[in-house]
Amino acid sequence: MPTELKTLSQEMIPAVEAEMQAVLHADGTQPDSFYGMMQYHMGWVDEALQPAVVNSGKRIRPLLCLLSCAAAGGDWQQAVPAAAAIEILHNFSLVHDDIEDASDTRRGRQTVWKIWGIEQAINAGDAMFAIAHLAMARLEERGVDPAIVVQALRRFDETCVQLTQGQHADMDFEKRDQVSVAEYLEMIGGKTAVLISLSTELGARIAGAAPQTNTHYNQYGLKLGLAFQVIDDILGIWGDESRTGKSAATDIITKKKTLPVLHGLEHSPDLRQLYTQSDPDTAFVQQAITLLNAAGSHDYARQQAVEYSDSASHHLQAANPNGPAARALHQLTHMLLARDF
Amino acid sequence: MPTELKTLSQEMIPAVEAEMQAVLHADGTQPDSFYGMMQYHMGWVDEALQPAVVNSGKRIRPLLCLLSCAAAGGDWQQAVPAAAAIEILHNFSLVHDDIEDASDTRRGRQTVWKIWGIEQAINAGDAMFAIAHLAMARLEERGVDPAIVVQALRRFDETCVQLTQGQHADMDFEKRDQVSVAEYLEMIGGKTAVLISLSTELGARIAGAAPQTNTHYNQYGLKLGLAFQVIDDILGIWGDESRTGKSAATDIITKKKTLPVLHGLEHSPDLRQLYTQSDPDTAFVQQAITLLNAAGSHDYARQQAVEYSDSASHHLQAANPNGPAARALHQLTHMLLARDF
Repeated sequence: MPTELKTLSQEMIPAVEAEMQAVLHADGTQPDSFYGMMQYHMGWVDEALQPAVVNSGKRIRPLLCLLSCAAAGGDWQQAVPAAAAIEILHNFSLVHDDIEDASDTRRGRQTVWKIWGIEQAINAGDAMFAIAHLAMARLEERGVDPAIVVQALRRFDETCVQLTQGQHADMDFEKRDQVSVAEYLEMIGGKTAVLISLSTELGARIAGAAPQTNTHYNQYGLKLGLAFQVIDDILGIWGDESRTGKSAATDIITKKKTLPVLHGLEHSPDLRQLYTQSDPDTAFVQQAITLLNAAGSHDYARQQAVEYSDSASHHLQAANPNGPAARALHQLTHMLLARDF
Repeated sequence: MPTELKTLSQEMIPAVEAEMQAVLHADGTQPDSFYGMMQYHMGWVDEALQPAVVNSGKRIRPLLCLLSCAAAGGDWQQAVPAAAAIEILHNFSLVHDDIEDASDTRRGRQTVWKIWGIEQAINAGDAMFAIAHLAMARLEERGVDPAIVVQALRRFDETCVQLTQGQHADMDFEKRDQVSVAEYLEMIGGKTAVLISLSTELGARIAGAAPQTNTHYNQYGLKLGLAFQVIDDILGIWGDESRTGKSAATDIITKKKTLPVLHGLEHSPDLRQLYTQSDPDTAFVQQAITLLNAAGSHDYARQQAVEYSDSASHHLQAANPNGPAARALHQLTHMLLARDF
């Protein structure tokens, strides 16, 4: 990892972790069953609510929030409650998504609903949602002006509404035969990119940046999130198994409606015909990839990824970030986007 | 309905309704499926998302909030966003509770999950939770000081955490053989009374009342909520069918663990023995009521209801409310508590 990013993330991530543990009552003693479920999901305890060290996700969003705050001239320590709030919000949405998508495992462990049942998992998610807001309210204790706190909370909840709209569209698409590329891009914008854009925007807001700077940070995060998702979509079909860690063409076998597939379905009658087949086999996968290549879907998706990446870089530059945090943001952006697609 | 209560509620409830419709995008046109589910739950549209006029609940909480604001010397119009937020929060919790409790109907209609599925209902609830917060943020547009808005939001989310803790305990109790009276009172405090106490407290806070006045309004609401719940528990066993609208002794037939039953189970070995029976019949109901009466459980629950009612009245008096709103608060309290138990 490049120097600035490494140095700053080693300071910032433990600060966020401590803030999240404070609001989620993880004081080192065995939690009760109420906070225990949430702490399990966060990766701090195991199923028996005993201390655990597990993969708990990369904490990219809080890092983007704190780096944006510092790069916009603020004291990143002031933004720690917002960074913690965003990460808890993200994790709340995963608890509910796992129920909605009937996912049994996450990060190599059983999901909350799988262990404690759907009823308790819905409720634990609701509690995390409320606690994410309580984290936001702690901004005031770090000296952030109440008017900025109210504005940050408003943006926080506008983003929550967009997330639920994205999830609504995603579930709706599962049931539909036809989804347009435009609908898909709007859905992934809502479902994933808006939370990245909230992270960068709130960092700038807490730094007290000018309105147009806030907008550039917002757009930087949004385009970064979109580029990241489109690259994921490409790697889900053409990715190198040894690098992505999941078997190649997974998204074809599951007939997942990702960007290249939707482009292919729009442009190739043969692919549309193929996708009426019910049980995809190896021959199906080979044929689908051939048809996608012929329809220019790989090139189209690559082009989209490049455009979003370029737009992210443009907005980051226009935001005029400063100091080591600015360099760290460029480094992080590069790490997230310079994957081999 | 007494004059002041009638006059004020006729002004206040339409104002809250308009505010809720604004944040839930109910502008009179047919809603999309995302906002449509929420508007259905609120009672504004039917299953086909066409305009409907149905029983949508009594809006007691927003009324208590606005009356408390006015009685504490504030301009109740300023508190309308908080009143709307509390009612939307209450309705969000019903959407999720209906899933958790597997309830098919509410207010005579199918529940949201029953029509649109569990996945979409979880997500619609999440959206309403976020929108309740957006309603709170609108306090600022009515001229409420941002520092008061942040404090109100903090109390809002602390209450949400208590609600989920109450629901957690309630679901836990369903599975347990033994629940103490003390645990039960804590559970109903969290599950129902805290939202009433939030309503009255936020009214006072928005009026800019002194800290100890806010506390009295909070305690007035809390004790009012507890008294109301205990009276409900009594009527669920000894209630007059023609007045309560539900068949007498319903809570005995379903073996619901309400306050009188828990008291009886603690004090009567015979009742404990009876409650091991699996299919309650008419003889069971008769015998249970006889044993409850003998154990003094009816008297105990009545005593609790009276103590909570007295405490509510004491705190309302200590809050020193003024004007027609003060009289309306007394009238509303009387209506809620002076049921024949």
